[in-house]
Amino acid sequence: MLRDVKTLADLGEFGLIARIRSRLARSAAAPGVVLGIGDDAAVLRPRANEDIVVSTDALVEGVHFCWQNETGRALGARILAVNLSDLAAMGARPLGAVIALAAPPGLAVRHVDGVLAGLAAGAARWGCPLVGGNIARARQTSWTVTILGAVRRGRELRRGRARPGDTIFVTGSLGRSSLARRRAERTGVASRYVPEPRLDVGRALGKLKARVSCIDISDGLASDLGQLLGGTGLEDERLGAEVDLAALPRPRGFAASCRRLHLDPATVLVSGGEDYELLFTLPRRQRFDASRFEAPVHAIGRVSREPGIRGLGVGADGFRHF
Amino acid sequence: MLRDVKTLADLGEFGLIARIRSRLARSAAAPGVVLGIGDDAAVLRPRANEDIVVSTDALVEGVHFCWQNETGRALGARILAVNLSDLAAMGARPLGAVIALAAPPGLAVRHVDGVLAGLAAGAARWGCPLVGGNIARARQTSWTVTILGAVRRGRELRRGRARPGDTIFVTGSLGRSSLARRRAERTGVASRYVPEPRLDVGRALGKLKARVSCIDISDGLASDLGQLLGGTGLEDERLGAEVDLAALPRPRGFAASCRRLHLDPATVLVSGGEDYELLFTLPRRQRFDASRFEAPVHAIGRVSREPGIRGLGVGADGFRHF
Repeated sequence: MLRDVKTLADLGEFGLIARIRSRLARSAAAPGVVLGIGDDAAVLRPRANEDIVVSTDALVEGVHFCWQNETGRALGARILAVNLSDLAAMGARPLGAVIALAAPPGLAVRHVDGVLAGLAAGAARWGCPLVGGNIARARQTSWTVTILGAVRRGRELRRGRARPGDTIFVTGSLGRSSLARRRAERTGVASRYVPEPRLDVGRALGKLKARVSCIDISDGLASDLGQLLGGTGLEDERLGAEVDLAALPRPRGFAASCRRLHLDPATVLVSGGEDYELLFTLPRRQRFDASRFEAPVHAIGRVSREPGIRGLGVGADGFRHF
Repeated sequence: MLRDVKTLADLGEFGLIARIRSRLARSAAAPGVVLGIGDDAAVLRPRANEDIVVSTDALVEGVHFCWQNETGRALGARILAVNLSDLAAMGARPLGAVIALAAPPGLAVRHVDGVLAGLAAGAARWGCPLVGGNIARARQTSWTVTILGAVRRGRELRRGRARPGDTIFVTGSLGRSSLARRRAERTGVASRYVPEPRLDVGRALGKLKARVSCIDISDGLASDLGQLLGGTGLEDERLGAEVDLAALPRPRGFAASCRRLHLDPATVLVSGGEDYELLFTLPRRQRFDASRFEAPVHAIGRVSREPGIRGLGVGADGFRHF
């Protein structure tokens, strides 16, 4: 007879580990994975002349997600996507990811199952093996993913390399995450935007023999553009930008959605976070075939010598944790 | 005039990031670090013919630490040490670490300062650059470290390679963490054992042309010996062991400390967790010069065909999270 398993406490530590291992087993198998889940550490194999790119990001219940507004599956995919976006912004390819779950014993197993399904689906979709992790008891649930990528030596995409006159580009469209969040708030229906990490664009930029600077948009266009141009938020930005508000790419039906949801379109475009599109600069004369990617790429403005960001017409604050 | 900065909320997100960057700046600089803190991701450079070893571990307030029982500095060192121990158990050398802090806005800045000091000291002592991280708001403080190491291709130390007749070894001594925890409970004086990752022993084992299996002791000797021999806790262990309780290495003054703290010595030795000593097996006839390491190495028993662990005389339960 099977016990009725509803919470992590019913499952027990070893039961939870076994469940994670079985759900992610296929996701852990890939040519670059020498050793996956189940030892003191995982072992990954980069190619010759590759450097390792590493980034970590946490999603905390009640801050970055809540089970009411998002399915576990969407959350799992999103956790992986936001981390892969950092690899995209560095021009790297995925090598693997490890996942640390902190959770209360009363957490429903179905939530964890949903997240595992989303992680596995994302791992397959984006080619990122899930090779290890950690579980710990905590009062609040959080998922911390650390992602490893590989990039050809010397070809990583950095911030702070823009120069006056460079063209500023953005991938995809802006505001999709803000719209989805607002929709969830107002309708109570689970709805969160799962970003698409722009790995193809990042890797193509890494192959250019050009001065590129690149970042992904997590806090909002204006805030992250400031970061890209060298501002830390504490010191004066060294460069500025002229951005064309009208040129910012909008998702389909954007104006109508903003009206319906009582959102200011410019604020959403400029300050809405969590879209995880790439924001990058290229020298004005650099040739770049922007038509060959999964998502469109749009020129939205130009880097200027004068500090500050002009042309956006609204405040430039992004999300702050403290 | 300086504001009175006592909590993370006083500092603000960018203030906290700037503080972390400045405190860890020296720790992020090392020959293998191509790019440290401050971009979308860090970039690390392994040597030719090295694989990447990765592991993640979280310490949660109230579960793994509390500010009353341990100084921030000791906690910072311990966080790094427990992760480096996983590298030691794989035979790897440290490449770098990333740190995710989740904390409430009311957390005292002095606690964070203490942990940063301990992390920086550990990074210098053990040669592990701190190359990036993440901060997030949460109700409960936690520190999640992901550690990256490098190991010569095909030379990682795995579990589950032991065979009947192999000798079982342990580094250092057992019970130091249990004694320190109990002392803190009973006296109220901050006291936690900061383990010493046995990186030198792990790397020496990796250089042997021999069948080695290795694990670090996090949950307790008996529990981790079961893991080393191939048991998952859910299925029957395939191998067993004869261990000599009298041969288990004790810290100086162990018997007296146990009496004073009302602890059963055998239970402490067999089931006390968090010592992070290496537990490994070697073929009986394998030559291994155990005298050249920072810590002593002791033979404590032998792998047997008969499942189960004999000779310990007490239960074999380790710590369980759920």
